[in-house]
Parts: sequence; C-alpha cells; structure tokens
Amino acid sequence: MHRTRVRVVEDALDANNTIARANRADFDRAGVTVVNLMSAPGAGKTTLLERTLAALGTDVRVAVLEGDVQGTLDADRLAALHVPVTQINTAQGFGGECHLDANMVRSAIPAMPLDDVDLLVIENVGNLVCPAEFRVGEDHRVMVASVTEGEDKPLKYPLMFRACELVLINKVDLLPHLDFDLDRLLYNLDAVHPGVARLLVSARTGEGIPDWCAWLRRALGSGDRRAAATSA
Amino acid sequence: MHRTRVRVVEDALDANNTIARANRADFDRAGVTVVNLMSAPGAGKTTLLERTLAALGTDVRVAVLEGDVQGTLDADRLAALHVPVTQINTAQGFGGECHLDANMVRSAIPAMPLDDVDLLVIENVGNLVCPAEFRVGEDHRVMVASVTEGEDKPLKYPLMFRACELVLINKVDLLPHLDFDLDRLLYNLDAVHPGVARLLVSARTGEGIPDWCAWLRRALGSGDRRAAATSA
Repeated sequence: MHRTRVRVVEDALDANNTIARANRADFDRAGVTVVNLMSAPGAGKTTLLERTLAALGTDVRVAVLEGDVQGTLDADRLAALHVPVTQINTAQGFGGECHLDANMVRSAIPAMPLDDVDLLVIENVGNLVCPAEFRVGEDHRVMVASVTEGEDKPLKYPLMFRACELVLINKVDLLPHLDFDLDRLLYNLDAVHPGVARLLVSARTGEGIPDWCAWLRRALGSGDRRAAATSA
Repeated sequence: MHRTRVRVVEDALDANNTIARANRADFDRAGVTVVNLMSAPGAGKTTLLERTLAALGTDVRVAVLEGDVQGTLDADRLAALHVPVTQINTAQGFGGECHLDANMVRSAIPAMPLDDVDLLVIENVGNLVCPAEFRVGEDHRVMVASVTEGEDKPLKYPLMFRACELVLINKVDLLPHLDFDLDRLLYNLDAVHPGVARLLVSARTGEGIPDWCAWLRRALGSGDRRAAATSA
C-alpha cells in the first residue's frame, strides 16, 4: 500500500513541476521576482512581511499571494498596508491541503497584477514538511525559523531547511528569555545545509530587517538581469 | 484534478478509519489508554512529555510512540527517562508523510509492550493540518498550542482545534515577554470549539503540570471502566 502511495506522490510531484515551470515562465515574462516564504505555524511570516513592506521602500512594487487552509486573516492584515493581496484557501477546491502547489498558484495568476509588480511574495501554509516538496514557480525559497521552536528543527525537518536558500532566524528579541542555544541551531543548520545563508531578525523590534530588505533587493537585481537576458 | 484528489483522500480516510478501529480494539484488549498528542513544530510536546513522565508517578506505567519524518532525537530524549519508546519515521517506508496514520501505528503495535502499560502517548509529527484528519486508534486527542505562535491559530487551523478534547496552552512562562493577548486566544478557541477543555502550562517551569497529570489520571480511570465494561 505504501509503495503505491510513494509512486502516486512521485507522479503528482512530476505534474507539479511541469505546472511550476509554466508559472515561472509567466513570472519571467512579467519581470516579477518571486519568493516562496515558508515556516511552521506561528513562526512570524505575516508580522515579518508587515515589517518588510514598511521597510522596503516605495520604489519596490510588492504583491502578496497568501496561502492558508482557510480564512483571510493574514491577507486582511497585509491588505491594510495597501499592497495587492490575493488569497488561496486550500479548503476551497483544493482538498484542504497542508501546502501550496503549483496548480493552486497557477489558478491565482489571473487575479494578480503581475505587470505592475517587481516582487511577489508567496506566503505558504504554515508547515515544515510538505511545502518543501512542491515548487510553485518561485525564484527563491526562504524559510522563517523562530528561536522559540528549539535548536533541533533542522535535524527533524531537514528537507525544508535544505530546500531554502535563506533562513530567517526570527524572534531573536526573545533569546534572553529562552533556554535556547543559538550556536547549536547554527551547528544543526550547517549539518543539514552547509553554509546556507542565514539572518538573525526580529519582526517585533525590527532587528535584522534592513539586512533582509537588502537581500530582497539583491534578489530583485538578479531578477532584472534574468528578464534582460530573456528579452535579449 | 482536484475533485479527483478529494475523492482519493476520502477513500484513504475510510481505509484509515477501518485500521484505526482495529488498533483501538488491540489497545482495549490490552487495557491501555491511548493519547494522541499533536501540535505545530516546536510547540513543546517532547519537553512537556519529559516533565509529565517525571511528575506522573511510578504507579502509572507509560509508553511512548514517537512519530517523526526522520531521526530519533525525541525518542532518545524520552528513552533516557526509562520508559519504553518506539519510533516511527514516516520517511522510512511511509513516503515522508507529514502525519501519523492508523497503518503506521498498526505497524508499530508488535514492537510495543502493551500488556505492561497503562498509558500510551503517541507523539504525532509536528503539523497543525493533516494529523487532525487521521485517527490512529486513540482514546483521546490532545493538542499543545504555544503562546509564541500567536492568538490567531484556532481560526487558521480550526480542524485541529476542533479535533482535540483538551488544549494545553504551553510556554505561559513567556507571556510577560510577548505581545500576546491570552483572552483573545481563548476567545478564538471558543469560536471554533466552544467550551473545549484547556489548561495553561509551562513545560519549562512546571506550571500547570499537576493539572495535566490529573487530567491524564482521569483519562486512565475512564479507560479502566472501559476495559471492565469490555470484559464484562
């Protein structure tokens, strides 16, 4: 039974990758750089995005694609910052899935103002397992790991920590109040993804947000070069 | 495509429930009360279990079934407390699933000393979505919600908060250091699961652990009555 399931999953991932490439081609044509932002529930993705949108500067035009099982709580918070926000609810037509997949993102593309946007941030469903398996057509995969989650998470969810190219270590303002060994987290991180970029941030105090914004601006720069290369 | 997927999921859940009933019958025959413990990654299930095993008293014989995508970190921690611990890794033969299902638990039954145990705690994979969908043969479903995860989680993951009969609100020692409105969490909790039992706990300081142990002892009591009724 379980071998069959593994094959079904592999076929589904093949189909997903095909659709992800179609999404990526659409994003490239529109000149949009796409970041797939992933984390466990409650790691602070939305609060971080609120801070980021305020700090990034008005010359970068941002849109958000919000993924949740149900509800529009995060989308409502971000829409209050006057950025275009599109909501995907996996409970509506997508079987209540615990992650976004390329087909869900594809279904949202007509609703997004891609031609008027430089950066699209896709806030994935809060989950450290399945989102790492499904590419959605993004340029970059970034994860948020909160220090309140413990030092062992890279070892327990290695696929997620390997899938991303930047780890935002969030809620560092709480470090004085936790039995948390930051060196141990970094050691575990390097054990599963040696040398992966990491930034210490606090969405609450703003610590590290300028560095994260600089990372995003560099990502946009490489996106511009890519669009130029495509149109050349 | 997605309608087909929904039907595949429904068929899988039907099969799962059949196997869960078989597990439950085995647990009943052995007179074991089974608690399925669920939470997001890093909410503190394992630390809570360490505290609980120390506090519960030696007259209650406990075993743990540890569910992880991979690795044995939590199992190793709990085995150090001299309780029988059995590990399920979903990455080994179960397609890296983001939850335990009844068939995985069934595969572990021969390895567990059920006849020598009063309470079996199944520590599920850290995830607020799929574990709520899969019964595994448990008597009770309990979830751990950390105050660091924010007040909105019941609204974003309502199936999980509805599936359980007790919510352990953990890490309350951090409340003075968070922008967290406990009343709002409780309000949201009652909005999705009116009146569900809840206990404020801190696995770190031990706050609330006696109440949680008392809850477990009452659960064991009802388990004994069930076993008596079954054998009568």
